[in-house]
Amino acid sequence: MLSVVILGTGNLAMHLFRAFSKSTGVQVVQVVGRNPESLHSFSAHVATTTDHTSIKDANVYIIAVKDDAITEVSHHLNGKKGVVVHTSGAVGMDALEPENRGVFYPLQTFTKGKDIDLEKVPICIEANEGQSLILLRSLAHTLSQNVHEVNSEQRKKLHLAAVFVNNFTNYLYGIGEEICMKEGLSFDLLKPLIQETAEKIQSMSPKEAQTGPARRNDQKSMQDHLKLLDNDKHIALYNLMSEAIKQVYEEKL
Amino acid sequence: MLSVVILGTGNLAMHLFRAFSKSTGVQVVQVVGRNPESLHSFSAHVATTTDHTSIKDANVYIIAVKDDAITEVSHHLNGKKGVVVHTSGAVGMDALEPENRGVFYPLQTFTKGKDIDLEKVPICIEANEGQSLILLRSLAHTLSQNVHEVNSEQRKKLHLAAVFVNNFTNYLYGIGEEICMKEGLSFDLLKPLIQETAEKIQSMSPKEAQTGPARRNDQKSMQDHLKLLDNDKHIALYNLMSEAIKQVYEEKL
Repeated sequence: MLSVVILGTGNLAMHLFRAFSKSTGVQVVQVVGRNPESLHSFSAHVATTTDHTSIKDANVYIIAVKDDAITEVSHHLNGKKGVVVHTSGAVGMDALEPENRGVFYPLQTFTKGKDIDLEKVPICIEANEGQSLILLRSLAHTLSQNVHEVNSEQRKKLHLAAVFVNNFTNYLYGIGEEICMKEGLSFDLLKPLIQETAEKIQSMSPKEAQTGPARRNDQKSMQDHLKLLDNDKHIALYNLMSEAIKQVYEEKL
Repeated sequence: MLSVVILGTGNLAMHLFRAFSKSTGVQVVQVVGRNPESLHSFSAHVATTTDHTSIKDANVYIIAVKDDAITEVSHHLNGKKGVVVHTSGAVGMDALEPENRGVFYPLQTFTKGKDIDLEKVPICIEANEGQSLILLRSLAHTLSQNVHEVNSEQRKKLHLAAVFVNNFTNYLYGIGEEICMKEGLSFDLLKPLIQETAEKIQSMSPKEAQTGPARRNDQKSMQDHLKLLDNDKHIALYNLMSEAIKQVYEEKL
């Protein structure tokens, strides 16, 4: 039985706590947070504390806090025997102070109140020492079948890629919603298309899946679209995206 | 029983043909195409012709060809009693010559060889005349429960929105793939995130769903990301997207 202490009370902390609670083979022995209110939603199920001097012993300490607080929180775990990991895509492993350190990065977007089945979520692990890596792999496998050893440099690139496919994509969805609303149309009209677009690349490369006026260098459609746009940012984006797509496929036209 | 002639042999023509073939209440009586080879995949199941002078009578003629060929194809249907529709998002209804005209626009991306359940696909219909609209609505309902009356101006805006949420989104997926490949990482790592991003906005607004460095105006993360990018187009896109997202949420920070 692996024992885990979670440090942090945010979205990811809650999702991990829930997932570990369901899995056999892991016991969350404590959740550590700064303020009692945030700990409240955990306290019915597990020991909690706001006191960094009374952190329990465990095999793994999972720091699930904002990037810029990771080093500070890890400081309180100096001298602990277990492996101290953070959960960030953007922060190197060595932001952690303790001797046994690593990373436990679930590559997914976690939303408050929306359950996620972690089973298929890639968990990217890293450790500064072989035994710790084995431990983290066991821990990750209690949650997911999709466990990968990824070093800090690779993880930063993955995090960057995630910004493109998640944050920026969501912003494009927002533009779609805005265009619909201005026409008195429901955003629901775009939802099946959004889902199919995401589903399509599960089995084919985005390069093959690309369609649209820019891909076929259809100048007339692009000009028509630009005339329909009245937001400067959207126009700039339309031009930049179309240029970039055209460039990728130019030689193939 | 509604009778339909399909003009065109591409992806959409094939998807519509298959969907109508499964539905009761509709019979595709003929498929019309320019060259015999493209008609070949239809000819085992339905009458086909390359001859525009021998088009059969039907209740609805569905023109599923490239945008710039719509008017020309519709010309061959002048004098027919049925309703002549095109299936394009970007083209106005009046690009059609025949007297009874309309639009039958399934708002979805259709890929060769990938089946799509049309049942939830929004079908946007328009007609220049009340009886034709009733007929098109009946026809659309044989395929989908999601039928909407949308005029030509609205449909053009929908098509524009679709470029953002489908074509441009797919391009972002491609950037994600490129970043992964350069690091020797599998694009599969990003697929669960891509799916969750699309799923999230099925039940919440993209505005609420937005996360990431730009949304929280996290300058350090954005600077770090920019240092990791080596493609000028990707850098320009990162900057433009981040600025646009920051602007939306500025007042809320």
